[in-house]
Amino acid sequence: MSDSPTARPVSRRGVLTGGALAAGGALAGATAVAVADPPRVRPASTVPVAEVGTAVEPFHGPRQAGVATEPQAHAAFVAFTLRPGTDRAALGRMLRLLSDDAARLTQGRPALADTEPELGLLPARLTVTFGFGPGFYTAAGLDARRPPSVVDLPAFGIDRLQRRWSGGDLLLQICADDPLTVAHTQRVLVKDSRPFATVAWVQQGFRRAAGAEPGRTQRNLFGQIDGTANPRPGAALDAAVWAPDGPVWLRDGTTLVVRRISMNLETWDLLGRTDRELAVGRRLDTGAPLTGEDEHDEPDFAATGPDGLAVMPDFSHVTRSHVSDDRLKILRRPYNYDGAPTPDGHADSGLIFASYQADITRQFLPIQQRLAERDLLNEWTTPIGSAVFAIPPGCAEGGWIGQQLLD
Amino acid sequence: MSDSPTARPVSRRGVLTGGALAAGGALAGATAVAVADPPRVRPASTVPVAEVGTAVEPFHGPRQAGVATEPQAHAAFVAFTLRPGTDRAALGRMLRLLSDDAARLTQGRPALADTEPELGLLPARLTVTFGFGPGFYTAAGLDARRPPSVVDLPAFGIDRLQRRWSGGDLLLQICADDPLTVAHTQRVLVKDSRPFATVAWVQQGFRRAAGAEPGRTQRNLFGQIDGTANPRPGAALDAAVWAPDGPVWLRDGTTLVVRRISMNLETWDLLGRTDRELAVGRRLDTGAPLTGEDEHDEPDFAATGPDGLAVMPDFSHVTRSHVSDDRLKILRRPYNYDGAPTPDGHADSGLIFASYQADITRQFLPIQQRLAERDLLNEWTTPIGSAVFAIPPGCAEGGWIGQQLLD
Repeated sequence: MSDSPTARPVSRRGVLTGGALAAGGALAGATAVAVADPPRVRPASTVPVAEVGTAVEPFHGPRQAGVATEPQAHAAFVAFTLRPGTDRAALGRMLRLLSDDAARLTQGRPALADTEPELGLLPARLTVTFGFGPGFYTAAGLDARRPPSVVDLPAFGIDRLQRRWSGGDLLLQICADDPLTVAHTQRVLVKDSRPFATVAWVQQGFRRAAGAEPGRTQRNLFGQIDGTANPRPGAALDAAVWAPDGPVWLRDGTTLVVRRISMNLETWDLLGRTDRELAVGRRLDTGAPLTGEDEHDEPDFAATGPDGLAVMPDFSHVTRSHVSDDRLKILRRPYNYDGAPTPDGHADSGLIFASYQADITRQFLPIQQRLAERDLLNEWTTPIGSAVFAIPPGCAEGGWIGQQLLD
Repeated sequence: MSDSPTARPVSRRGVLTGGALAAGGALAGATAVAVADPPRVRPASTVPVAEVGTAVEPFHGPRQAGVATEPQAHAAFVAFTLRPGTDRAALGRMLRLLSDDAARLTQGRPALADTEPELGLLPARLTVTFGFGPGFYTAAGLDARRPPSVVDLPAFGIDRLQRRWSGGDLLLQICADDPLTVAHTQRVLVKDSRPFATVAWVQQGFRRAAGAEPGRTQRNLFGQIDGTANPRPGAALDAAVWAPDGPVWLRDGTTLVVRRISMNLETWDLLGRTDRELAVGRRLDTGAPLTGEDEHDEPDFAATGPDGLAVMPDFSHVTRSHVSDDRLKILRRPYNYDGAPTPDGHADSGLIFASYQADITRQFLPIQQRLAERDLLNEWTTPIGSAVFAIPPGCAEGGWIGQQLLD
């Protein structure tokens, strides 16, 4: 959070910090809280076996998979830098090859030149989603066809961006419920791309395993339920995400923002639960807004407490990011990451924030601007990577991703 | 493989290498092979939902969990270096704390001072297995109680060991079918350990997702079925793994060897399927030995082909590692790893090889020695990390791991 000129948030912030320290160890405070929903414990042998390996998501269609698709457990975001000389014709060859292999692997068939074909047999809801960065259009000599909002984001005061997690001309978002399927698909598609591009960065992430917590919104490594306010599948999601008209290379496309958000578990773990809930604006156990009972209750920003202050603090993440109009919402599809801790045990944890929206300027940027200004969560989170991509329309069988743009 | 003085393996090796290069691109050769067992493809929506999140493995008992336990999908091997001054009494305090939190988390209850208690509710068959490295016994002043075979392995000519993946005084092997559960458990236990130890290294790995390929032996990133010759659960496994007698700090314990094996996918992918199968001694599709039909057929090392050569080559991995006597077998429980590729797309892939055996000197070393001498797979694999641990007996409710040794 930037220092605020108004009294209330600063005072709240003081209360938060003071409260955490005054509690004489917030650890004790945190553990005194009863936890909702203990799991129904039963022996492993009675767990029904799902056939998560053979489940298939379609590859072909007017829109790409991996966007509105119910998020899979594992993801690899693989960004490429085009080699000098990869021009419009070369891009077409690369995308024909990548599309063909992606189509095969998503349907449980090995890639065309698969050197480990046995690893290509279990799709586990595999999707491969193609994204075109600004440099892709330049390389193709088609800057005029770049969706105008697909440009590097403006710098935010909270950013500490690292080149190794930023930018990229081409993105492959590889998602599946099985980590071996993701690894094999990444290997195949990276090999396909080598004549045309180098690997800029790879971010690997995870959510709950398939079947582990069916029907629940994902939790991040702060323990927060994350994604409640997403537009619902159907008309609301469609209005937020898909370009409804325009030329064929744009219609039924969307855009993707990928931000790597480092989460400081060391300082977060010093906070008590009340302070955490004020920072987010939601209960940690149920995910309900502080003015509600259930996760999906609408927050009441006008409600005040006995102290006359808003129950939903102005600086809370939910207050800052709230959007009512479906057409202005963003579809978040984030994954957790967790690297190796330092020798002193400090975690390398965070979120691969990924949001889909029809227009970055109209939808993502206003939310991000409000968060960058005042979101109290900024105290414990730092954006360390940033990239933007156009997600072109899908393709029919026999076609390839990007064909409407390049052919 | 070290260069061999005998004619046959060298000649075979020449054939293999020449064959791969002469094929004018082994990629084509590899893809011409039909693949067995296409999956039964069906829409994602009809996949039955498993309750993988709530499944529980016992923590308390005479033997530690995570050894004979059917391998979970995800693992973090976390090795610690004891801080100076962590003596026998401090080790007791540390192990009381770690045992108590491990017991809670494995049963779906948050840790005692859990700052993200909602992340502690889904055990997903979580196990936490404690291992004591040589330095642990020294720190406790109990070198005389160290199982004699728990010492650094002798150097092998094939080793290219890196300190950052080697050694360690204490190991926590954290396994679960859910990656968020593994991450949270790692976080909790690393925090518990901080007054007593620093983090030496962490290796995170994966196998097929729970329910993805039920009843199948794991495949590694070479596409090989890996683990067929493991001793079967029951008497055979027990004879191989568990110390049957001795003092209370040893009985019902075992030992663990962790080796990080880098797998060179670049050169492996240049080989044709026949060459790969000769190198391993098994069919890639079924895992059957080259003299058999089914994965679990016993290999026939006396069988010869029309050329008069052994069907199971002397240099094949199966031939080199074969053991008939259950008491001399090792229980392999490996996980795949897959880091980010280089800019040029070279994979950082491999295997976290983990084997359990009652005695490293009697069981692991002879196999490793034979493999180091002649296993053709050494051409494409390199050990880059190595560590050994005693796995002490389990504990009863109210007790703690290591109590029989330290109390």
